[in-house]
Amino acid sequence: MAEALTGARLDALAAAHLPNVRYLTGFTGSNAVLLMSGKRALLYTDPRYTLQARAECDVPVRIVAQGPLWTEAAREMRRRGWRSVGLEAQHLSHAAWLAVAQALDRGVRLKDGSGLIENLRMVKSPEEIAAIRRAVDLAAKAFTKALRKAKAGVTELALAAEIDHQMRLLGASAPAFETIVASGERSALPHARPSPRTIAANQILLVDMGASLDGYHSDMTRVGYTGRPSPRARRMYDAVIEAQLAALAAVKPGVKVSQVDAAARSTLRRHGLDKLFTHSIGHGLGLEVHESPRLGRLAAGTLEPGMVITIEPGVYENGFGGVRIEDTVLVNSAGAEVLTPTSKEFLEIPS
Amino acid sequence: MAEALTGARLDALAAAHLPNVRYLTGFTGSNAVLLMSGKRALLYTDPRYTLQARAECDVPVRIVAQGPLWTEAAREMRRRGWRSVGLEAQHLSHAAWLAVAQALDRGVRLKDGSGLIENLRMVKSPEEIAAIRRAVDLAAKAFTKALRKAKAGVTELALAAEIDHQMRLLGASAPAFETIVASGERSALPHARPSPRTIAANQILLVDMGASLDGYHSDMTRVGYTGRPSPRARRMYDAVIEAQLAALAAVKPGVKVSQVDAAARSTLRRHGLDKLFTHSIGHGLGLEVHESPRLGRLAAGTLEPGMVITIEPGVYENGFGGVRIEDTVLVNSAGAEVLTPTSKEFLEIPS
Repeated sequence: MAEALTGARLDALAAAHLPNVRYLTGFTGSNAVLLMSGKRALLYTDPRYTLQARAECDVPVRIVAQGPLWTEAAREMRRRGWRSVGLEAQHLSHAAWLAVAQALDRGVRLKDGSGLIENLRMVKSPEEIAAIRRAVDLAAKAFTKALRKAKAGVTELALAAEIDHQMRLLGASAPAFETIVASGERSALPHARPSPRTIAANQILLVDMGASLDGYHSDMTRVGYTGRPSPRARRMYDAVIEAQLAALAAVKPGVKVSQVDAAARSTLRRHGLDKLFTHSIGHGLGLEVHESPRLGRLAAGTLEPGMVITIEPGVYENGFGGVRIEDTVLVNSAGAEVLTPTSKEFLEIPS
Repeated sequence: MAEALTGARLDALAAAHLPNVRYLTGFTGSNAVLLMSGKRALLYTDPRYTLQARAECDVPVRIVAQGPLWTEAAREMRRRGWRSVGLEAQHLSHAAWLAVAQALDRGVRLKDGSGLIENLRMVKSPEEIAAIRRAVDLAAKAFTKALRKAKAGVTELALAAEIDHQMRLLGASAPAFETIVASGERSALPHARPSPRTIAANQILLVDMGASLDGYHSDMTRVGYTGRPSPRARRMYDAVIEAQLAALAAVKPGVKVSQVDAAARSTLRRHGLDKLFTHSIGHGLGLEVHESPRLGRLAAGTLEPGMVITIEPGVYENGFGGVRIEDTVLVNSAGAEVLTPTSKEFLEIPS
């Protein structure tokens, strides 16, 4: 962190974005300001978290009994005589930013420190990788268990509820995001929410799910068909799996992230389906489900060992359906290690 | 809305806080900017929501294919020649505020429009009240069903998972917040998360839960004891129930919100327990679990018919345990209508 501050010409950085606070201190409460100079750090929180903060954090904790944490943090900024302090402009409300600015002497300059901590978070430690592996394995187990109840005649909502329940029974604190169960032409909506609609026979069934466990997340998408897949659905599926394998093969340390997207996109172009791939190939994940690096077509940056990303090409045909295949992937020195243990067959669901 | 704009001397207001957008337009997607002048409204969203936005909204929709929605909204602000535009400084990031400011002519003045829509949302329509009733009833039913599995020997996490699963089976889209199941001395932590710990015999068991349904929320807390309550736990319980009834009796249109808190606090003072009542008596709820009005000791404002609030006094004794009793309550012309149908007995849980 000291290096990041020097690089950004900051005397200190004050962070309140909770995943960033948790990353640097271990604190899991819902309200905190973390103040960091090159050498020291200080965590502000409120009395609800007195015991918890002291138990979780390896930095000194200040409990603010009354008023906003930012007022106390600003007081400390003045006291230390800092000239240049970074705040997270992308996470902090404009109102909070103004409140800090007002509480400071004119001599203190506020700068945007967005992304400094997110950049540190991109390369995961062995402990973080282990935590993500646990979240990935948990979701995969829950998927396998819940799949036994998947069949034509069940509602999307009931299957989503079963998936979420299995994740909880296996120890997940929550789903990583609202579990997607989308059947038939609804599978063509990349952000479909499960609906009360009954899963019909001879349709695509798409499940996109992840688990939240010890603060870390997983993310996977698998697709099945109620009955024997139609040739049209099969062609779509085969093209997407080919694109996914091409993207996985492109994953290597030093490779530009945009090349991973390009590998999937050019594969789909050969099948005449690239126009139907309407989102990016993936995203980093860890303490947040979506975090740096972003792996879009136009994204900058290169892959490094220790990054954890998703690889998830998809093809969506309005009125018919969609196929997306998604794994959680670790970038290691040799290439991509696919963490998601689940088979990538086109699943035949009882109809 | 037109009146609120005039009152705040704004030509227009641009809102992106999703519950506010949903309230005014019906849009349920995850990315939107709603631009409103006195007469007209316009919703900006991205291509993921093309079909959904047009189906849900009764205002014109503009799909922004590339770049931030705010850039397009700012262009419209310039085109209309507005001089004074409100943004939600409490919800909007400082970075987004600056981006809007930069995209505007110097002639356009940005002001803080925080709270304007939240104020409208305080008094619920009959349709909203019906939606909240459904969320309240759903959570109460799930509580009753899940309670059958509550007994000493079960873990807090397993009981929380059962509650969440019952809510989902009854149609909830999600828990309204992370369900709290806290036993023994952990019940003294007002924001305890369910832990892997086994619920023991002869302990307090506190459950705080709510359902999210059609965008609206419910919130209830009930307390039981594994076995026959000890005299100490019973005294605590009786004091809190007395305080809760006193607060409910204080709820009437025209009453200052601080008086509702005072009614509970003075009851607890007679029992020598007011110092252990470490939070406020309640909060509004609706499209958000916590919204205006706030019912704290120092809060301003008066109750009006159609407000929906929680009444939830609690007493927390470090190392022993806590009791909180919470109902969701409708303010009607006569006083408080308690929506939560669940009995407020001190529950005897099998031990």
